[in-house]
Amino acid sequence: MQVTDDIAKVRKIRNRSSKLTWGFVPTMGALHAGHLSLVKAAKKENDKVAVSIFVNPTQFGPNEDFAKYPRTLEADIALLKELEVDLVWMPTKETIYPTGYETYVQVEELGSTLEGASRPGFFKGVATVVTKLFNVIEPTRAYFGQKDAQQARLIEKMVCDLNFDLEIQIMPIVREENGLALSSRNKYLTREQKEQASALYAGLKIAEQRFLEGERSVEILHALIVAHLDKDYFKIDYIKIVDSETFEEIEIIKKKAYIVLAVYLGSVRLIDNFLLNPSTFME
Amino acid sequence: MQVTDDIAKVRKIRNRSSKLTWGFVPTMGALHAGHLSLVKAAKKENDKVAVSIFVNPTQFGPNEDFAKYPRTLEADIALLKELEVDLVWMPTKETIYPTGYETYVQVEELGSTLEGASRPGFFKGVATVVTKLFNVIEPTRAYFGQKDAQQARLIEKMVCDLNFDLEIQIMPIVREENGLALSSRNKYLTREQKEQASALYAGLKIAEQRFLEGERSVEILHALIVAHLDKDYFKIDYIKIVDSETFEEIEIIKKKAYIVLAVYLGSVRLIDNFLLNPSTFME
Repeated sequence: MQVTDDIAKVRKIRNRSSKLTWGFVPTMGALHAGHLSLVKAAKKENDKVAVSIFVNPTQFGPNEDFAKYPRTLEADIALLKELEVDLVWMPTKETIYPTGYETYVQVEELGSTLEGASRPGFFKGVATVVTKLFNVIEPTRAYFGQKDAQQARLIEKMVCDLNFDLEIQIMPIVREENGLALSSRNKYLTREQKEQASALYAGLKIAEQRFLEGERSVEILHALIVAHLDKDYFKIDYIKIVDSETFEEIEIIKKKAYIVLAVYLGSVRLIDNFLLNPSTFME
Repeated sequence: MQVTDDIAKVRKIRNRSSKLTWGFVPTMGALHAGHLSLVKAAKKENDKVAVSIFVNPTQFGPNEDFAKYPRTLEADIALLKELEVDLVWMPTKETIYPTGYETYVQVEELGSTLEGASRPGFFKGVATVVTKLFNVIEPTRAYFGQKDAQQARLIEKMVCDLNFDLEIQIMPIVREENGLALSSRNKYLTREQKEQASALYAGLKIAEQRFLEGERSVEILHALIVAHLDKDYFKIDYIKIVDSETFEEIEIIKKKAYIVLAVYLGSVRLIDNFLLNPSTFME
């Protein structure tokens, strides 16, 4: 496994095997089983696998957790070595954003709602850094987690709009036994908060159950989830049911939709989502 | 010479010779000797040459000349065939901007001054379409004309910022005998206006002469150019002397600077520029 922070070296390694397929997993490190599921999928589907580790400052707001975002570089590298990753690129902030940096990519509508509304600048930072990572790695396939559903869709849209010559693969959410979606930010949770956090997935499953029984009203499904979250613990940022492609809010579920949510548990912001697919009944 | 509007076909042709170097000349058609000089340079420096012809709607303002921009497709193709270009890509508007298109690239500071200030959205349209064209053609080298000095610099900056793996080559302005910089928009000028337009280059040369004699004051050089333009004919949009990299205005010329100008002659907007290089004296 080659580990480097240098763009020229990454390009050299990449070009040495330009005829082979490369799978790419962009990460901010603090790797967990969710990330590893992406790496395993990339291993399976490509000749070579590259992983980047870069805590991207432009996707954090001024009052967000950039400084304290978990950094576990040694453990990350050990995990990736075990999975026989070919290339780990961990650029510095100065490599990615040198003095005078000023070029940004935006997916305008999709990037302005939900996470984009709650976290101004977040998706601009994501789209920009992913464009840069793609241009350096030139992957055949790039892997993203369904946990960040809107981000995954936004990257798909960006790849399509900007004609990147690569495939986006979106892999299922990996959850704790109690249903909590894996996230590097779960490290911020106390043991007690982790237990409380299981109510999120339980709420999603309650809505799913009613959906499977035939309920199509967003208002009713939404109310079920809200009712399941204890107001003493959870502060809701948003809970919405949206079109699975545009992430626009809907009122009646007629085609694939996501329940997407962001809540605060204490000072920790958690997101989760769940696909509701009406065609489940049409089979 | 292969001529196509189809992205998949372009990629196929490009990938068939992936080991060869490709030069790329993006154009809006209405080809003149300026464009042809880019094609000739691309021929000289690369194994293969691709030219795109696309009048890009996103770089025209609502009150600009998108609809009446000269389109001379048959003549363009004949010229490119004569130069033995390998691939001409002329995508439709719907191919480049399908329904729901929403991803844009912006070079924020450089794109907001001068042409960016006079033509809001112009550089956003340019940066976006060039990103898309680069992602489809994947050129080794791409060629731009110095006539659009700020555009050329903006593309260089974008390529650097977004880590495109290609070289930008900027080729000298080609001028009419009377000094008028070639432009597809010169077709809008009457014969009389074309003669009047020669005052632009003459003004630039007067400023250059004084500069070569040692004058470094922007105020003085600026006044010389303004004085040379007959107010009965020319309406000045801007005449500025700016740093050659940042395009920020300066007061004293200490390193390479451009005189950049945009004027209206009747309803026709003309731009031109001239490099002032203090190190001419230091050799």
